[in-house]
Amino acid sequence: MDIIQFVEQSIGQWRSQRSAHHMAFSHFEAVQSIIDIDMLSGNDPAVVELCQAYDVDPSQAVAPFQMKWEGQSDWDEDNPEVKGSAILVPVPDPVVPQRGKLLRDQGYAETIAAAGEYHFLDDGTFVLITAYERAAAEERIWFANPNLRFRVSLIKTSAGSGVVTASFSSEIRSSKA
Amino acid sequence: MDIIQFVEQSIGQWRSQRSAHHMAFSHFEAVQSIIDIDMLSGNDPAVVELCQAYDVDPSQAVAPFQMKWEGQSDWDEDNPEVKGSAILVPVPDPVVPQRGKLLRDQGYAETIAAAGEYHFLDDGTFVLITAYERAAAEERIWFANPNLRFRVSLIKTSAGSGVVTASFSSEIRSSKA
Repeated sequence: MDIIQFVEQSIGQWRSQRSAHHMAFSHFEAVQSIIDIDMLSGNDPAVVELCQAYDVDPSQAVAPFQMKWEGQSDWDEDNPEVKGSAILVPVPDPVVPQRGKLLRDQGYAETIAAAGEYHFLDDGTFVLITAYERAAAEERIWFANPNLRFRVSLIKTSAGSGVVTASFSSEIRSSKA
Repeated sequence: MDIIQFVEQSIGQWRSQRSAHHMAFSHFEAVQSIIDIDMLSGNDPAVVELCQAYDVDPSQAVAPFQMKWEGQSDWDEDNPEVKGSAILVPVPDPVVPQRGKLLRDQGYAETIAAAGEYHFLDDGTFVLITAYERAAAEERIWFANPNLRFRVSLIKTSAGSGVVTASFSSEIRSSKA
């Protein structure tokens, strides 16, 4: 598995069931959402701008894409809408193509731009680690079959050993956009 | 990571939060339970008997253990108790010690004895695949730190590509027994 295959397999519309476990108070949260993942052109002004913000030559970027999500949580009844979008730009390591950076214009944990480090495990699982100022995020995504993928996301303390929230998503492809 | 280290790290009492996603009808189920994992002696009559049932020489077994779980589900209100125990006996491959068989006297999916095949990914994740008569189960378990482990369990159709149920557990160690 490399990042180009991984992004190609991810393109489309996905129906997502997400369960979040809040560690400190054993709380379960359930979120149902629709996720759209669309390929972007390498010439897209937003892609070029994100590369420049991270001092990356846009010619090193591969398979940039956009994610949009819109869902409903059962947790916060006053504000159940979960909605957002992000542009993501993979920049493979020129020497070790199994790993690289993933630039994004908006992170899950702190809604600011962030660059994460990704690599693939030997079974093709994608692992992304992103350090924020006051937290770190770890995501692992793998495909059970071409139309079903799983995602485990951890929000950790910035020191990295304490896990604040762990969430699990099952994502079923509803169309191949 | 090998199976002996993995079992040693797992010994103790764990407080588990489990979310199950039932794929066909987008249903969320939440289960809270206590899991006790205890080392057994290789001479334990139950271990020897399980080896014999699978034509395995008991001297090939390593780090046998017992798991007991007791919990409550929010799904079936008439029968919310989730309770059970199993004896598990790892039998590493004599040539490739990163993989092997795991014998158990009672499976999750069909409550009959079963032998699964395990291996470790390059980041230490334990992966177990068990084929039952009418279903297959895939489990992956990994440690975020010594007192926190995650488990993703899939129940698949016996052909192996359709996933019926996916569940995610966060397990926090409450004592090191």
